[in-house]
Amino acid sequence: MKNVTDYNFFEKKMYIYPCKLHVNDCMSREKEVTIYDLARKLNISIATVSRALADDPVVSKKTKKKIADLAQEMGYRSNNFARNLRTQKTNTLGVIIPRINSYFMSSVIAGMENVATSEGYTLIISQSSESVEKEKANATTLFNNRVDGLLVSLAYDTDSLAHFEPFTKKKIPLIFFDRTADHRDSTCVLINNLKAAYEATTHLISQGRRRIVHITATQKRNVYIDRLQGYKQALADQHIRFREDYVIVGNLSQEAGADAAARIRQMSPLPDAVFVANDNCAVGCMIALKQMGIRIPEDIAFVGFNNDPVSTVIEPNLTTINYPGYEMGQVAARNLIAQLGGASGTRSTNTIILRSELVIRESSASRKPTS
Amino acid sequence: MKNVTDYNFFEKKMYIYPCKLHVNDCMSREKEVTIYDLARKLNISIATVSRALADDPVVSKKTKKKIADLAQEMGYRSNNFARNLRTQKTNTLGVIIPRINSYFMSSVIAGMENVATSEGYTLIISQSSESVEKEKANATTLFNNRVDGLLVSLAYDTDSLAHFEPFTKKKIPLIFFDRTADHRDSTCVLINNLKAAYEATTHLISQGRRRIVHITATQKRNVYIDRLQGYKQALADQHIRFREDYVIVGNLSQEAGADAAARIRQMSPLPDAVFVANDNCAVGCMIALKQMGIRIPEDIAFVGFNNDPVSTVIEPNLTTINYPGYEMGQVAARNLIAQLGGASGTRSTNTIILRSELVIRESSASRKPTS
Repeated sequence: MKNVTDYNFFEKKMYIYPCKLHVNDCMSREKEVTIYDLARKLNISIATVSRALADDPVVSKKTKKKIADLAQEMGYRSNNFARNLRTQKTNTLGVIIPRINSYFMSSVIAGMENVATSEGYTLIISQSSESVEKEKANATTLFNNRVDGLLVSLAYDTDSLAHFEPFTKKKIPLIFFDRTADHRDSTCVLINNLKAAYEATTHLISQGRRRIVHITATQKRNVYIDRLQGYKQALADQHIRFREDYVIVGNLSQEAGADAAARIRQMSPLPDAVFVANDNCAVGCMIALKQMGIRIPEDIAFVGFNNDPVSTVIEPNLTTINYPGYEMGQVAARNLIAQLGGASGTRSTNTIILRSELVIRESSASRKPTS
Repeated sequence: MKNVTDYNFFEKKMYIYPCKLHVNDCMSREKEVTIYDLARKLNISIATVSRALADDPVVSKKTKKKIADLAQEMGYRSNNFARNLRTQKTNTLGVIIPRINSYFMSSVIAGMENVATSEGYTLIISQSSESVEKEKANATTLFNNRVDGLLVSLAYDTDSLAHFEPFTKKKIPLIFFDRTADHRDSTCVLINNLKAAYEATTHLISQGRRRIVHITATQKRNVYIDRLQGYKQALADQHIRFREDYVIVGNLSQEAGADAAARIRQMSPLPDAVFVANDNCAVGCMIALKQMGIRIPEDIAFVGFNNDPVSTVIEPNLTTINYPGYEMGQVAARNLIAQLGGASGTRSTNTIILRSELVIRESSASRKPTS
């Protein structure tokens, strides 16, 4: 019998692809096919070909089909560059985001892509990896690529918007989403982070919790400033003293959650609730605390932020703020495209606030009556 | 005291942005700044400006700085379009993926973006939403945008590669990754799916399981064909009969996992293991089975695929195949850029296979000896 650890036979079986005997090292691109070539081949005028390709009703359907078929056969590409030079439009939208590989951000991008495609725009996506230097480089690249508009969610450490000035000077519309900044010429799309955090914290208080830790990120970004503010406001309204040492600032990764758990474990008395500025970090913190034998929600209750799918996988399921990423992407892209089309009033829109809501699950249940 | 459910005060407090009193409806773009403008302003020759902007060592550092500062101040944009018409290069790479909002795919994109940026390329990303019609439309858009190369992961229902012919005809290099297809002129980047599935299934058998269900997706795509093949081969090598009714085909969503759980529950005798072609679907299936009172791994053991972060959140933690998405994105982009640079041999590379490995966790532990 074949030994199950011997996989050599797979290589032989699986990857038999046709052999290529020539090596094509230099890029021998053919000459570009033009409308002149199409006209000559069909023995019709250049004007007719040009009109047909622009779908002018003057040209008959039959002729259009003949031209379209030949264009396809000969590999004709509509001359976007030449057209761009004339119209000054590229039909591309630039996007700068901190990280593409988060559930929330990839949902936003999916929503943008959905609207952009249906409106005939293409997205050019770049990530700043949370670095302002990278964000500046991305802005320059997108500027030189002549995007028609720009959608930005700021990096952790961005503290000036000077790198967006070239866009503003050229009247290229700029929209900030999620991680926004106050800028005289641009629109912000966000949720009411203060209100959401206020609701989350008030919910924990209503469940009998009073020693509530808040895990968040840099206080340079609106979303984290506003969430901390909402947390403080809720404590104040219920006459609970705000404690500086209950605010843990990190990068909101799952690892940061585990680190926060170690700090929480050292606190005496043990906090009885944690409000975290994202679900991923909340999950990391919950797993670490559970491993230390701390019961959730009996000993410590939890509320997260974003409503990532992982919030319904962790046990107990995580109470969180439902934050509509896909819809935010759609709204931001639709607003940008409306500005490009010169839709009345869009350029004077300062802020669009999307609805968010508290989703209550087991992680924040009331303490069972103790014996 | 303020009622905690009255949030009106937030609106007043939070979103005081500067008012804009003029409405800017028409897109009054200024005339584009040219190198002629820069030369006139500095009273130097156009040739010098041109050389300075191309970083020609002939021009002094001092002059370069003067020109660069003025270019920035006046909002000069390097004339990419005109340059593109000359060089026939756009320094953009097109990407077509089924969905951007999956952990695996967004990791791949992050890896591509990392390499592309460092090599001076920009990604144009589009998603097919698992539809061949959308995939065709994306291909046409990217072709007309004159991308220098294309990176593709195929939709569920793609059964012809005709829509990529225009690229091949123009010798625009094309790389398939993850969901690949056999194509005479392109390179595939993937893992050995057959081997990975063989290992996963053999591991379950070695844990004493014999009634192993396989949950997968359409048999049009290589990844699912190969995983089913590996599963079958492992059964055959251990003299376990393959049962058609143990293969459940769906879209691998978390909901599809819950649906599969309902079917598994009806099977008699109850299967004792499930091998799922992705983690997300495995998690959906596990949650549903647990709700029915079925114990994991005691009653049914589980192995997933991808090593998504969710696999360490679900309880018990999920045994899975570690599939390096970020690295796959880097390798695919690096190979494509090497082809564009005419690197020797790259065009004759058919297939690049990345390493993957079985990560054993609690979900596939041996049954405890029963009393």
